Amino acid sequence: MRLDKDTPPRFPAPMTITGRNAHREDNMPHDSLELRSTITADGTLRVNLDRVSVPDPGKGELLVRVEAAPVNPSDLGLLFGPADMATLKAEGTKDAPVLTASVPPHLLPAVSARLDQSMPVGNEGAGTVIAAGPDLQDLIGRRVAMIGGAMYAELRLIRPEACIVLPEGAGAAEGAALFVNPLTALGFVETMRAEGHKAIVHVPAASNLGQMLVRICKADGIELVNIVRSPAQAELLRGIGATHVLDSSAPDFRRTLEEAIAATEATLAFDAIGGGEMTSTILNAIEAVAARSLESYDRYGSSTMKQVYVYGALDTGPTILKRGFGFTWGIGGWLLFNALKRMDPAIVQRMRERVAAEMTTTFASHYTATISLADVLKPEIALACQKKATGEKYLITP
Amino acid sequence: MRLDKDTPPRFPAPMTITGRNAHREDNMPHDSLELRSTITADGTLRVNLDRVSVPDPGKGELLVRVEAAPVNPSDLGLLFGPADMATLKAEGTKDAPVLTASVPPHLLPAVSARLDQSMPVGNEGAGTVIAAGPDLQDLIGRRVAMIGGAMYAELRLIRPEACIVLPEGAGAAEGAALFVNPLTALGFVETMRAEGHKAIVHVPAASNLGQMLVRICKADGIELVNIVRSPAQAELLRGIGATHVLDSSAPDFRRTLEEAIAATEATLAFDAIGGGEMTSTILNAIEAVAARSLESYDRYGSSTMKQVYVYGALDTGPTILKRGFGFTWGIGGWLLFNALKRMDPAIVQRMRERVAAEMTTTFASHYTATISLADVLKPEIALACQKKATGEKYLITP
Repeated sequence: MRLDKDTPPRFPAPMTITGRNAHREDNMPHDSLELRSTITADGTLRVNLDRVSVPDPGKGELLVRVEAAPVNPSDLGLLFGPADMATLKAEGTKDAPVLTASVPPHLLPAVSARLDQSMPVGNEGAGTVIAAGPDLQDLIGRRVAMIGGAMYAELRLIRPEACIVLPEGAGAAEGAALFVNPLTALGFVETMRAEGHKAIVHVPAASNLGQMLVRICKADGIELVNIVRSPAQAELLRGIGATHVLDSSAPDFRRTLEEAIAATEATLAFDAIGGGEMTSTILNAIEAVAARSLESYDRYGSSTMKQVYVYGALDTGPTILKRGFGFTWGIGGWLLFNALKRMDPAIVQRMRERVAAEMTTTFASHYTATISLADVLKPEIALACQKKATGEKYLITP
Repeated sequence: MRLDKDTPPRFPAPMTITGRNAHREDNMPHDSLELRSTITADGTLRVNLDRVSVPDPGKGELLVRVEAAPVNPSDLGLLFGPADMATLKAEGTKDAPVLTASVPPHLLPAVSARLDQSMPVGNEGAGTVIAAGPDLQDLIGRRVAMIGGAMYAELRLIRPEACIVLPEGAGAAEGAALFVNPLTALGFVETMRAEGHKAIVHVPAASNLGQMLVRICKADGIELVNIVRSPAQAELLRGIGATHVLDSSAPDFRRTLEEAIAATEATLAFDAIGGGEMTSTILNAIEAVAARSLESYDRYGSSTMKQVYVYGALDTGPTILKRGFGFTWGIGGWLLFNALKRMDPAIVQRMRERVAAEMTTTFASHYTATISLADVLKPEIALACQKKATGEKYLITP
């Protein structure tokens, strides 16, 4: 987690020892198994489990037993870095397993800032408060959703600002992914409003996040163009009420994309693929639709502002822009933490309240399988996590 | 010129006949030779000279004898479109020459909106007022700089809002290019201020526009990183006072680019190349410099906002983005007319006044050769105009 000078940390930083004012039951654990990822200077990825000692919670702190943490695409960058997944190997012992892989030398400079550092992993999760500072005793026993990194662990010391207290009876799996995807999907809609667009194109749209966006837009009366990668995914989205669903593998994709953009007047897109030509294809389609209403030729293109935000990197290859879309366009990175910083705090608060209220409906996530911390160190499971196939999603239950 | 519903025209539109209140000398010409470009539906570019009749100037109008008009890169797109310049042919007769070329079939859809239309060409120029509406008689005999299209012609009917009246004694060549390049260079600086950057990277920097930017930044105390394509261009820029000049053909270009960015703290760039990897290289260099001051690894990259505006298309090939620059970045098209619309009118007025005051110094342009309207129809000259080699610039004197 970064703590630079100019900006607040994007997530609350993992806690350090804060004093002796312990408030925990006598039989409470004082150490925690924690998943760590290291890339060594000689180009080896090492993922292992460390036994770390956990301090007693001080004032303003909660000690949470982590019960569920999703493997999000945004976790994989830190977990496996740019390692060659074909070289995955199980090493170490049965009690202290280690997963290794080679990092191609030409990719090492991109991760120079993390070399030889043992990094905790896991953006978000849910668990039960087992101890708390003197001011937070009423939260003991409550289940909370958390954001802040280092969630692939048995225990997490955390501040309540980084938590949502879940309703009584809520399961850990239900609360495990209430930050990254829900706030991102709601953030897209806020970005749309702030920048004056009226509809959104989303790709790939069948992810957990995409499904949330379908439900949000349906509830809020916003038109959404969903681009998926197979007929089955198209079926899935139509099943939850999506209207405009396009299969990018279909031969008439470009034509149907223009039709959907014309029908919705979408001029804004969010692309989690990043590499390849999808961003370019969307910009060209928006421009082609805008050009239909030009009264005469303009060599600078239409004056319709076309914007695509790249918020993921499912394809880490180069982005290829075939600039047939004039001069009135923008592309940018979109990062939840940057977006939240720019928003009115009242909007952010409303977003959090909506997530809590609709956790089992709008913001429900679905998982392919539940795995243990040690399972992540098995090459076949690591590979399955890394595949990032839409609809394949793992939940770690430490 | 476009006249769409939502926005004012980017340039004043060419005038149409406005009435019988003629105010012109008896021996004044009533028709004008005008250069026209047509792309036919079957894929042929035709450039020819039309004899068009010019109405008498009405109220609020000036009739100007065009004396000089530059061939800007921004004119070439309309003049030659996507024609294959290897197929240029001189046709027609001596008195009515025609230049033709083939447009490759796959590039025709990009210009579908102009097919079979005879388009006048020439964004800007200068000339002498030879007749005027009753309210503008005092301008007869004055030399003016003009913007508005259709400048590759003997006569231009125009409104005074689209003109700068030049000081007595100013030559036509001096006034021919006082809009596009000067306002673009000043616009870059205004964009820098509006978006909170403190220095600029510019490529390619040895153009007439680049030289203006060097002089503006020097006068205004703004740091500028100049990327050129040869040692001779580097020498030229150093000769007019540029400090950071990098040759992109040098083997240590990437290293020196990072050094210059570190020295200037530039986080904004303007790229007229468009195609290829220059935009990507600049973003990666800015990110590499920003990453130096990160206290710990952040897999989302630095939080330093990195922005590149593409304002030209010297390379019309795809833009290739190798996204090693995190998630806090933007790329966009930059168009003078969009930028002017967003600016405070008082700023635009100050820009125009500065251009008039510094026309022979900061905003002086240099030309390789002076050519006639008919010369443009000669294949060898058309080819030379299209080459867009920095430092090669033609001035048409109708």
